[in-house]
Amino acid sequence: MSETTRTTQTPGAPEAAVAPSPAPSRLAERAAALDDADPLAGLRAAFVLDDTVYLDGNSLGALPAAVPARLADVVAREWGELRIRSWTESGWWTAPERVGDRIAPLVGAGPGRVVVGDSTSVNIFKALVAAVRLADAAEGADGDDGVTESPARDEILVDAATFPTDGYIAASAARLTGRTVRAVAMADLAAEVGPRTAVVLANHVDYRSGELYDLPALTAAAHAAGALIVWDLCHSAGALPVQLDADGADFAVGCGYKYLNGGPGAPAFLYVRGEHQGRFDSPLPGWNSHAEPFAMEAAYTPAEGAARGRVGTPDILSMLALESALEVWDGVDPQQVRAKSLALTDFFLECVSALLPDGAVSCVTPREHARRGSQVALRCEGAREVMAELIRRGVVGDFRQPDVLRFGFTPLYTSFGDALRAATVLAAVIDER
Amino acid sequence: MSETTRTTQTPGAPEAAVAPSPAPSRLAERAAALDDADPLAGLRAAFVLDDTVYLDGNSLGALPAAVPARLADVVAREWGELRIRSWTESGWWTAPERVGDRIAPLVGAGPGRVVVGDSTSVNIFKALVAAVRLADAAEGADGDDGVTESPARDEILVDAATFPTDGYIAASAARLTGRTVRAVAMADLAAEVGPRTAVVLANHVDYRSGELYDLPALTAAAHAAGALIVWDLCHSAGALPVQLDADGADFAVGCGYKYLNGGPGAPAFLYVRGEHQGRFDSPLPGWNSHAEPFAMEAAYTPAEGAARGRVGTPDILSMLALESALEVWDGVDPQQVRAKSLALTDFFLECVSALLPDGAVSCVTPREHARRGSQVALRCEGAREVMAELIRRGVVGDFRQPDVLRFGFTPLYTSFGDALRAATVLAAVIDER
Repeated sequence: MSETTRTTQTPGAPEAAVAPSPAPSRLAERAAALDDADPLAGLRAAFVLDDTVYLDGNSLGALPAAVPARLADVVAREWGELRIRSWTESGWWTAPERVGDRIAPLVGAGPGRVVVGDSTSVNIFKALVAAVRLADAAEGADGDDGVTESPARDEILVDAATFPTDGYIAASAARLTGRTVRAVAMADLAAEVGPRTAVVLANHVDYRSGELYDLPALTAAAHAAGALIVWDLCHSAGALPVQLDADGADFAVGCGYKYLNGGPGAPAFLYVRGEHQGRFDSPLPGWNSHAEPFAMEAAYTPAEGAARGRVGTPDILSMLALESALEVWDGVDPQQVRAKSLALTDFFLECVSALLPDGAVSCVTPREHARRGSQVALRCEGAREVMAELIRRGVVGDFRQPDVLRFGFTPLYTSFGDALRAATVLAAVIDER
Repeated sequence: MSETTRTTQTPGAPEAAVAPSPAPSRLAERAAALDDADPLAGLRAAFVLDDTVYLDGNSLGALPAAVPARLADVVAREWGELRIRSWTESGWWTAPERVGDRIAPLVGAGPGRVVVGDSTSVNIFKALVAAVRLADAAEGADGDDGVTESPARDEILVDAATFPTDGYIAASAARLTGRTVRAVAMADLAAEVGPRTAVVLANHVDYRSGELYDLPALTAAAHAAGALIVWDLCHSAGALPVQLDADGADFAVGCGYKYLNGGPGAPAFLYVRGEHQGRFDSPLPGWNSHAEPFAMEAAYTPAEGAARGRVGTPDILSMLALESALEVWDGVDPQQVRAKSLALTDFFLECVSALLPDGAVSCVTPREHARRGSQVALRCEGAREVMAELIRRGVVGDFRQPDVLRFGFTPLYTSFGDALRAATVLAAVIDER
């Protein structure tokens, strides 16, 4: 295996020792020992899993075992029997804030800072437009429409390799607020943010490479330049500890259906920093974000707190599935999740090194722990066909254009045995080609 | 009962004969006879109902009996066993268009015109901003940002009594596109739409009064003035026939959880007129609306057809519950639905007239069939407490500010016996006060 990324070691980072090509039997012993010593191993039973090696939880998390019964109760009793009464009696109305408060500790947010609802894309739109308005307000030059005519801060700075929806939505937010979008490499963002930057939109973990970026440092760089920052946590929330409050992030959005295991298309979440909440000026002021939604007033008065990020009636079935899924986090230590995630990806890389011929794949994901999310991306020839064959043989990762095999490691339910089996099957598939 | 609305009779409209105060026993006979003769009576078995008289289907439709088993399968097998494979193998990816095509015949739309996803509020935002952009394009004066600097058509005209979210979202769309919102009474909209109007946003049925407005006439008036029109069908789709294609509507949005019975917070739908689809320029261009979403391209190229109205990953659990709920419409004749709706509300009004003392309530809903949706709104003193007591006694409608009792009649599952019992209990509650 060769490396395609920089291998600069972060001084003092606790890297796992990589044994040079141990025999496969040694790897099986190692996997068993690592699984035996895993303090999170018991959590696997909280998920519905079979003998598939499922390494695509970064695209769709596995089904938590508690969800089917909970959702059946939501449908049969709360909807079927209580019907409209459930908006109050079953707590449907307050679910967006309540589920937000369940996610909050996973992203280092205090209570009342996170609201759940809508898709990631829609939440990026809310955050970006609101951030531009805050930037205008800070310039003291906003007119009636909340957007300055010829603003000094005329750009939204985005990660050039961003997940596409972020860039598309940024372009729309820019167009509607009279800004332009400027795309630069994540590595250059800190240097590029400047006096013309209203807002930075950045990904915490790159969806393709799995590279983890320095949230505190880039947040500080944005603030030093007088800009605000919106973080996309889709590939970090639930995979590694995030400290939004402590690190000063202004806004963040994240996904309910990847590492939070909320089910296909589970609603996303929106974080608004405490000091911004009172001035959060949403471009989607639906009736659910009104201070008194049932007063049915013609004039809009925004709610205080997290509810201000709501829009229309929340999708209760999807939202309560997510709420049930989040119960698996009760009592889980995020530091243990991170430690296991790194140990899993270390071990997988070790197995790949040991079992695959040199040069068959190259690793896109940084080796340094401080720069690695919870996935391993391998570049390889014929990646699309290789992944299709892996899936046929019960190892489920995914393919990303143009030539990337992506393996996601969900610490709550992935075992070291899974990592070894994935590498073993990958070696067999490559060997046969 | 007194009338607070105009009682002008539409010439030739088929009004039910209102018997002057028949004895309660006669009403019971009438209800039984009407139920016996009801061609839709068998559909009640397709819903989970108990001995509650449920007249709040215009807020949350009752649970269709097929939904629990379908959703259990979606969760346990499609998510739990197939996991990520279900995006293709279980048809998740194409669900927004497929479910849209199921709704299309209920609103008079051809296939490929309706897409399902997001909330009503978010869809109103898409439709309004896209309509303003079309208006600008028609003026031939749009700049790079698609919005004219000093547009001749500088206003969005809205119904002054609109459901609040429509007005709030219209204000946001106006603010972001450099327009102003002007609110006028629905009765005056046709006269007020003019050369300054870019877009009209109108409700087909008023959520509070139950008044049905003339969609073809108001659409024609908007077009005659050179304006576009966006229809909110939340209180008409599924309750009465709508002919969007035939009547020339430009855009329409509607609700999945009222008369379509899709479950709490079911995704909403968006209709885009065929001739506008190729120029539909969404303010929420998420990756799901890209022509090649999995190419992960940095540049946005919109999909053709209904998919252009998509944004982010669809909320599959809520969407597939809605899809299952829509199966009850198979083979149902919309004209029969309308006929039963009018017969139900006629009969309920007849019962109220017969059983309540004169002046105890006044009817806000027009008597004329051509101006009546599928609900009856009664103004009464102490309406909030009266409704609370009705609910305690098993008659579920809802209260709307400031003094309105709202009774929704869902023709698929409401019986004439329900209508009589509701009026009987209402009479008892009023009598005891």
